[in-house]
Amino acid sequence: MTDTAIRNGVDTATLFATLDAVKATPEAARFQFRAENEWVSGTHNRSTIYRFFGVGEERTHERVFELDADHPAVLVGHDNGPTPVEYLLHALAACLTAGLANIAAARGVRLTSVTSTVTGDIDLNGILGLNPEVRNGYQNIAVQLTIDGDGPPEVLTSIAKQSRARSAVFDIVTNGVPVTIDVATN
Amino acid sequence: MTDTAIRNGVDTATLFATLDAVKATPEAARFQFRAENEWVSGTHNRSTIYRFFGVGEERTHERVFELDADHPAVLVGHDNGPTPVEYLLHALAACLTAGLANIAAARGVRLTSVTSTVTGDIDLNGILGLNPEVRNGYQNIAVQLTIDGDGPPEVLTSIAKQSRARSAVFDIVTNGVPVTIDVATN
Repeated sequence: MTDTAIRNGVDTATLFATLDAVKATPEAARFQFRAENEWVSGTHNRSTIYRFFGVGEERTHERVFELDADHPAVLVGHDNGPTPVEYLLHALAACLTAGLANIAAARGVRLTSVTSTVTGDIDLNGILGLNPEVRNGYQNIAVQLTIDGDGPPEVLTSIAKQSRARSAVFDIVTNGVPVTIDVATN
Repeated sequence: MTDTAIRNGVDTATLFATLDAVKATPEAARFQFRAENEWVSGTHNRSTIYRFFGVGEERTHERVFELDADHPAVLVGHDNGPTPVEYLLHALAACLTAGLANIAAARGVRLTSVTSTVTGDIDLNGILGLNPEVRNGYQNIAVQLTIDGDGPPEVLTSIAKQSRARSAVFDIVTNGVPVTIDVATN
């Protein structure tokens, strides 16, 4: 483990080896991620995250992750977890930050701190069905990123731009994805 | 607490009172949700969910929620949490299920079980920058919902349809939201 191989906690040798492996076998890059959700009571429900598919085979995380979601009391819930729309903001922040660390490592830039605040403005007249002019989702999302590291501001800013340009969640949230819903009743 | 007032764990009297209050004061429905994220190491980072704005004032959850995100080893991480794109699937499942419980309660339908599996297909040639034809985000997302409750299949299915029609996360993920990113460097 040398200063060159591990940067920002990223094993850059493995990162580049992974890139080379996918270049050689593009099919390895096909992944499927999954969440299994179960209703608990009211607006409280829980997802289990464990299995996924990638690099040609079924895989599992090292442990089972359980995520509780709920509404706060002001939205007629019991606050047993973040709201679904807060989880979405977290997903966006997490994707941008993971990308930043990888890209900085690949470019040989040592980061010392990355923090962000993500805010989403929503008018609940949409989901409450009280105003057909108001959309259900966020009207806009704002990300405030603060980066500290061994590099001039323009280098750190260009790493942030590249992270946005290569972020899965940024693409999903800004461009949308087709979603199919199938319903079975017992 | 009568059988009529609490259904599916939803306090329907409070639910209808909230709807009436927002009808009277539409401005109360303006909310802002937030995630504060901090990089830990490599692809591992952590969001704190606590403060939000709604019904005219700053509010907090009953406790601080901390969410760890990471990549699994096969994606050059250390599996300290779900991936950002898995959090997004959870957000979608959680939003649809919370809506289902509320809508069923409002319609007087008792639910006994709601489960869902949400899958997202992604080709990492996009985020790895190896194929400009491939998008960064999911190519498609599929939700398999299974609902059990006191009602004929068509009633349960219509509740699921209404949940989709009023879901904040479904709207965000299918239609997209404008996202601004501001970067500060220290």
